[in-house]
Amino acid sequence: MIHYPNKKKPFQGKHSTTAFADRGMNLEDDLNKTNAYYLELNVANVHKKPTPVTIVKVDYPSRSKARITEAYFKVPSTTDYNGIFKGFYVDFEAKETHSLTSFALSNLHQHQIDHMLSVREKGGISFIIVRFVLKHETYLILIDDLVEFVKIQKRKSLPYQWVKEHAQLIPYKLTPPVDYLSVIDSLLNQGVIHEKV
Amino acid sequence: MIHYPNKKKPFQGKHSTTAFADRGMNLEDDLNKTNAYYLELNVANVHKKPTPVTIVKVDYPSRSKARITEAYFKVPSTTDYNGIFKGFYVDFEAKETHSLTSFALSNLHQHQIDHMLSVREKGGISFIIVRFVLKHETYLILIDDLVEFVKIQKRKSLPYQWVKEHAQLIPYKLTPPVDYLSVIDSLLNQGVIHEKV
Repeated sequence: MIHYPNKKKPFQGKHSTTAFADRGMNLEDDLNKTNAYYLELNVANVHKKPTPVTIVKVDYPSRSKARITEAYFKVPSTTDYNGIFKGFYVDFEAKETHSLTSFALSNLHQHQIDHMLSVREKGGISFIIVRFVLKHETYLILIDDLVEFVKIQKRKSLPYQWVKEHAQLIPYKLTPPVDYLSVIDSLLNQGVIHEKV
Repeated sequence: MIHYPNKKKPFQGKHSTTAFADRGMNLEDDLNKTNAYYLELNVANVHKKPTPVTIVKVDYPSRSKARITEAYFKVPSTTDYNGIFKGFYVDFEAKETHSLTSFALSNLHQHQIDHMLSVREKGGISFIIVRFVLKHETYLILIDDLVEFVKIQKRKSLPYQWVKEHAQLIPYKLTPPVDYLSVIDSLLNQGVIHEKV
């Protein structure tokens, strides 16, 4: 199942230059800005992985410029984001939903959940970031909590109410727009996140 | 400077099915096999990042299949490989050279070196893997050693002799073909790699 074409902008790198316009930015843009901010302040190195594509045909109109003329979107084998923070390997997937009542788990592939569990088992920090667009709220859900919910409830979506009670609300700021590492840092300080292996 | 079009195969996922043919495989294929092996044995989660491309035009001949008809290769902003091993964030770049006498540092972008140093500073393990194709030898060079060499020698290439003396030879095996994590593991046991922050 390939979601990209409708969900992500086919044109990359087009950012508005006015500050006010930023307020309407999507989660991916907000995370890019946040990660750039972390990098600049030398707090963490977290990057979005490139969109995976299968390249079929490449033209070489000149020596210097190769042009891909046929390619297809591929199902990603892992999550979209990973990196390092305070010596920890961090790994997460980020999704938006326009639902007011729940986040459908069909937004995640099973192998992505398996990947995050495997990372967590090795001493990494895995989570998902979910934005309820219409509520202007963005949450961080640790993979353990997500899996626990699925095991017990056997439901195919996370009710908004459950998220509100069990997940961490990421405070909205201008800089950085989605300060998810402040949430992770506080969970580390509280001892909520397992210690290193 | 974009190297991909000549260096990487435009067709992905075409592997020979005979075992003998594998012996002629390139470093990227060998690393893919090695990482798949690590994953299967639950030793580590390390993945190659997708090749970054800027997508310009997408056709939608049907609802289900989007076809990219114009895209260009992008300069990667980080390294090609990263993941988690024994709780450590690992991050590396892998290159082949056909030279018998040296490895040209122009194979690496300055921002890739900066990235690896920044990762190392945060408690991660950063290195490059260099294969001297004509010698059938593959080496692991820690970022610290690489940077130290560059600082002192101010040269634009690593002489083969220096690599032989200062880097770790990765033993060639059939399974996995490039067992670089055995080298990292032994460096960790010897205390050569810094401890976690």
